[in-house]
Amino acid sequence: MSGRVLVTGAAGFVGRHAVPALRARGFEVHGVGRAASAEAHWHAADLLVPEARRALVAEIRPSHLLHLAWDAEPGRYWTSARNLDWVAATLDLAQAFTAAGGRRFVGVGSCAEYAWGAPRFDEATTPCRPATLYGAAKDGTRRILAAHAAQHGLSFAWGRLFYLYGPGERRGRLVSDAVHALMAGTAFPTSHGRQCRDFLHVADAAEALAALVAGDASGPVNIGSGTAIPVRALLEGLAARLGGAEHLDFGARPLSATEPPIIAAGTRILTEAVGFRPHFDLPRGLDDTVAWWRARGSAPG
Amino acid sequence: MSGRVLVTGAAGFVGRHAVPALRARGFEVHGVGRAASAEAHWHAADLLVPEARRALVAEIRPSHLLHLAWDAEPGRYWTSARNLDWVAATLDLAQAFTAAGGRRFVGVGSCAEYAWGAPRFDEATTPCRPATLYGAAKDGTRRILAAHAAQHGLSFAWGRLFYLYGPGERRGRLVSDAVHALMAGTAFPTSHGRQCRDFLHVADAAEALAALVAGDASGPVNIGSGTAIPVRALLEGLAARLGGAEHLDFGARPLSATEPPIIAAGTRILTEAVGFRPHFDLPRGLDDTVAWWRARGSAPG
Repeated sequence: MSGRVLVTGAAGFVGRHAVPALRARGFEVHGVGRAASAEAHWHAADLLVPEARRALVAEIRPSHLLHLAWDAEPGRYWTSARNLDWVAATLDLAQAFTAAGGRRFVGVGSCAEYAWGAPRFDEATTPCRPATLYGAAKDGTRRILAAHAAQHGLSFAWGRLFYLYGPGERRGRLVSDAVHALMAGTAFPTSHGRQCRDFLHVADAAEALAALVAGDASGPVNIGSGTAIPVRALLEGLAARLGGAEHLDFGARPLSATEPPIIAAGTRILTEAVGFRPHFDLPRGLDDTVAWWRARGSAPG
Repeated sequence: MSGRVLVTGAAGFVGRHAVPALRARGFEVHGVGRAASAEAHWHAADLLVPEARRALVAEIRPSHLLHLAWDAEPGRYWTSARNLDWVAATLDLAQAFTAAGGRRFVGVGSCAEYAWGAPRFDEATTPCRPATLYGAAKDGTRRILAAHAAQHGLSFAWGRLFYLYGPGERRGRLVSDAVHALMAGTAFPTSHGRQCRDFLHVADAAEALAALVAGDASGPVNIGSGTAIPVRALLEGLAARLGGAEHLDFGARPLSATEPPIIAAGTRILTEAVGFRPHFDLPRGLDDTVAWWRARGSAPG
């Protein structure tokens, strides 16, 4: 695979892993994001500024685009007004990319696009009926981009992320907050933990996205492990490695009424059309995550 | 009904009729569009310029918004890149409207949002699967706006226009072009005309939108007559009034393969929840349209 890929959000949780994964596939990788990385040609630009994003694309003229950037501020991104700004920025970025001769656009969506309730989300058959502004913004953006791509003969795919964990996760999210509490020896009040979620190591998610960029699968592709486990089991797995199981206070917080009992990714397209299989199973993924935090020498903060 | 309504696209085909319809319902009507009208408080602003649209909303502080503005250039709007710009402008306008204390937002969509094929489009049961960029842009915008509205407690409805005809229609559209040919005595090459479409007089469509603005119906509402007639019958109706039936060259143009045999609006919500019934049936609507062009003293041009 040769090509020049622009990665937006390249300094983010997924982006930092996607940059090396794309380099390993032979791409010339250009990154834009909040913090520079030596692993990519780095560009400073605020993608929410129209002139900045257009100049960036015109300068790089990427053949491929992996668009990770979006508002992901923990606790706020579900309802943030920034979701609408990112819709606009994404559509404009796609236009600029197309005008600059771009060939393949891979956007990133979420399991929050689906109507929650099905025991497994299938790209072809599970209806999209998001319950949140974030989910609706992603869903609407994908629909419009697909029509734009079809009209211009642009190759287009949309990776739908489920639940991620792994090295470098910022605070305010389940696994990073749990690791913090367990390493610090402080209480971790949480839900009953019986709800099942599909967790994937962030490096695997990034590798799946790199494979999606390099391939030619079209339309939405779930990016998950294919196996949903009780949240409780994941947290207990962390405690088994870090100690401090007594700090996990299951049931101290109510589970939101909108949270379904299970969220699981159907992975047939990811496996068959993209040809991806995860490197980490959950035990090895938790080992890796805990080792990373230990090597860092401090709890997530 | 009291309130201050901002009408975007107020100088357009529908907007010119919507302004008096809203005034008749007691609204203080503010218009923005390409040409000024004495019937509304007029504001000059380019809604595709972020600062301009935000300043407009901040100045007027409308309680209601009827958002008609969009790219409607005949022959080009189905595929125009401007569709993406209007998505962004619409989402930003909705944010500004909400921030300025707006209470009810009525957007305008299209029968092109639906998966064409059903014998009648029903808001609740017919899937939305647009075949065009225009349809996808409208569909995606509506989905995102609905989530924005739900989050902010904003009252939100979405009028889906079908096929319109009537006074003031610009060239490049079926009825205006046919009137032109019939008045000028020139050939009008057209399809076989057996496809059935739901035609509504533009003044009725505007009245329905005004009723929608003044009411509290939520979500998508088809705005149509509820009756689809063969396009051939409509054109023959024009020729019966204007003469020149021999100029109608049915079958001279192929019907696009994407055109379904029938497009008809289900009007239960429009009738029951909005309480609207058309003023014009087709014969009276054609009488009115032909009389308007005759009084104007020249063919559409």
